[in-house]
Amino acid sequence: MILPPDICLFSSFKNFPFRGLSYTKLLLLMDNNTQNYCYPLLQPYLPIHQKVVVPAGESHKTIDTCMYIWQKMMAYGLDRLSLLINLGGGVLCDMGGFCASSYLRGIAYIHMPTTLIAQVDASIGGKTGINFGGYKNQIGAFYTAQKVWIAPIFLKTLPHNILYSGFFEMIKHALIADEKYFNQLIHTPLQEACLSIAYITRSIQIKHVIVCKDFRESHERKMLNFGHTVGHALESYFLAKKKKITHGEAIAVGMICEAYIAYRKEILTYEVLHVVVKNIYIYIFHIKISLEEIDVLIQYMQQDKKRKKKVIYFPLIRGIGKGVIHRAVNQTLIASSLMYYRNIVS
Amino acid sequence: MILPPDICLFSSFKNFPFRGLSYTKLLLLMDNNTQNYCYPLLQPYLPIHQKVVVPAGESHKTIDTCMYIWQKMMAYGLDRLSLLINLGGGVLCDMGGFCASSYLRGIAYIHMPTTLIAQVDASIGGKTGINFGGYKNQIGAFYTAQKVWIAPIFLKTLPHNILYSGFFEMIKHALIADEKYFNQLIHTPLQEACLSIAYITRSIQIKHVIVCKDFRESHERKMLNFGHTVGHALESYFLAKKKKITHGEAIAVGMICEAYIAYRKEILTYEVLHVVVKNIYIYIFHIKISLEEIDVLIQYMQQDKKRKKKVIYFPLIRGIGKGVIHRAVNQTLIASSLMYYRNIVS
Repeated sequence: MILPPDICLFSSFKNFPFRGLSYTKLLLLMDNNTQNYCYPLLQPYLPIHQKVVVPAGESHKTIDTCMYIWQKMMAYGLDRLSLLINLGGGVLCDMGGFCASSYLRGIAYIHMPTTLIAQVDASIGGKTGINFGGYKNQIGAFYTAQKVWIAPIFLKTLPHNILYSGFFEMIKHALIADEKYFNQLIHTPLQEACLSIAYITRSIQIKHVIVCKDFRESHERKMLNFGHTVGHALESYFLAKKKKITHGEAIAVGMICEAYIAYRKEILTYEVLHVVVKNIYIYIFHIKISLEEIDVLIQYMQQDKKRKKKVIYFPLIRGIGKGVIHRAVNQTLIASSLMYYRNIVS
Repeated sequence: MILPPDICLFSSFKNFPFRGLSYTKLLLLMDNNTQNYCYPLLQPYLPIHQKVVVPAGESHKTIDTCMYIWQKMMAYGLDRLSLLINLGGGVLCDMGGFCASSYLRGIAYIHMPTTLIAQVDASIGGKTGINFGGYKNQIGAFYTAQKVWIAPIFLKTLPHNILYSGFFEMIKHALIADEKYFNQLIHTPLQEACLSIAYITRSIQIKHVIVCKDFRESHERKMLNFGHTVGHALESYFLAKKKKITHGEAIAVGMICEAYIAYRKEILTYEVLHVVVKNIYIYIFHIKISLEEIDVLIQYMQQDKKRKKKVIYFPLIRGIGKGVIHRAVNQTLIASSLMYYRNIVS
């Protein structure tokens, strides 16, 4: 399977082609997790570099952390021809990409994603951003990485819940674009699917093809937000309440709700809804939503960036492998979909 | 004289073509000066809009002010299809452009520059940014305005020193690109030159042509920084010391120093240096630099974004209307140029 030249998979850290790079200074951004678990593996192969370490986790994906990173970039004297490497998961890649996009009006950066979710999704397509005002990715830029260097062996450093979080983005890729891939995914043991080079590559391809058609997310790219309208609201709300949820778990709940919405809008059959739900809910039935929380989640969705005027537009699916965009959904139906999820997992 | 379709001059506020715009919500960003002096003139012609007002001045071109603007954008429910209008001078346009570039990964914005410096320079070419860590424009983005709507009648609301600040950017345009324009500028009374539609248009054209060749400032666009290496250092230093200087005055000092550097590097004759200096220094001889300040200014230049490794590269001129880029200059020569300026104005 073929990938574009700027996105490369490597079977070993020693294969990273640092010698082919040209830059004045090299700064490695990591969080305290990747500093502990990934940096020691990578360090022997790195050229001379400076380091900046930030706290791990979604709650640190803030403008304050960016200010800390920008200050370090200045302190180390990074200029327009310097290079930032983001060694981390989706949170770190998104935030590092935004810092690179905005430092001196943009310097080059390389993503070295260390989680499955970052390898198959977050690191591909030039979306960067941070959370702001209580909402996810409110501030950011479309700014493409010079290179994305993916080493699946990093995945072996991950706790299971973090590894599996990426599985749901793979399921999403399959649901919007590739029925055969969906069937492969659901018939492979979870751990094996998450570590499969073939599946990682397929997910990157699907995302890359969509991004190439619509970089700034005016049309087709919105499909990649399947599961994310409900998912982001859930994630933001859990973040505010300091309740634990992975991004993957949140969009898994979102995909169930949004598949239900597609069914209720009569673009998805009940049979296909059932296939989608039964293959997802087994992983997330521990995530409960109270009746009171449903209204709060809808308020969160109102603020989500996919909102246009007061109508909420969703990307949905009209079959397995068949994403569609821009379907208007009213609040009653969103509430019904959350009720449907409640019933499934109760 | 012809301008590109997205940059328009208007003789009256009522001619602004608001009806041709498509957006979900309209937010007008202004500072307390433009709120007092420009907004009342414009308001009768504006469609329905929300307002956000920030304090005027370079010292407020900060990430804190951006956070305030982003919060207002969220509070007013701006979505990806909303529009920001920046009504103000260079500081406000730079900062508003950055907020637009980063809100929801980029929304559309229109510049309505109210100062001469913003009309002929800051609003053209998609450079946005804020000051950070004590240095100018450290954080920002290249992100083009959907429209730049220029009403020279705004200039009549300006105090003289703010109006004249823009004159030096016009001189800079002439010095790097158009000898005939330079001769016109220096033979026109200052006030008249600053209010000339023909000169404003000519400056915009010069800047626009250069920006089109090199949007991300890898080559030709660096010429537009003539006078700015020394000028920015002076401006940052004065800002830190709370000493008053306009951007134009700072780059006027910078142009004298950098013309001297060009002379010492034997790319500019003494006669041409003399012509440049005698036509600029008459406006800025009140700006004094002490011997002790020369070292501090050089430290500021080290941090400037045009620096590459430890050498400082300058755009210079090799004649009137003949900009050149990427000339390595050592610190001794920079110090000499500041001494030369000291001697002229003492």
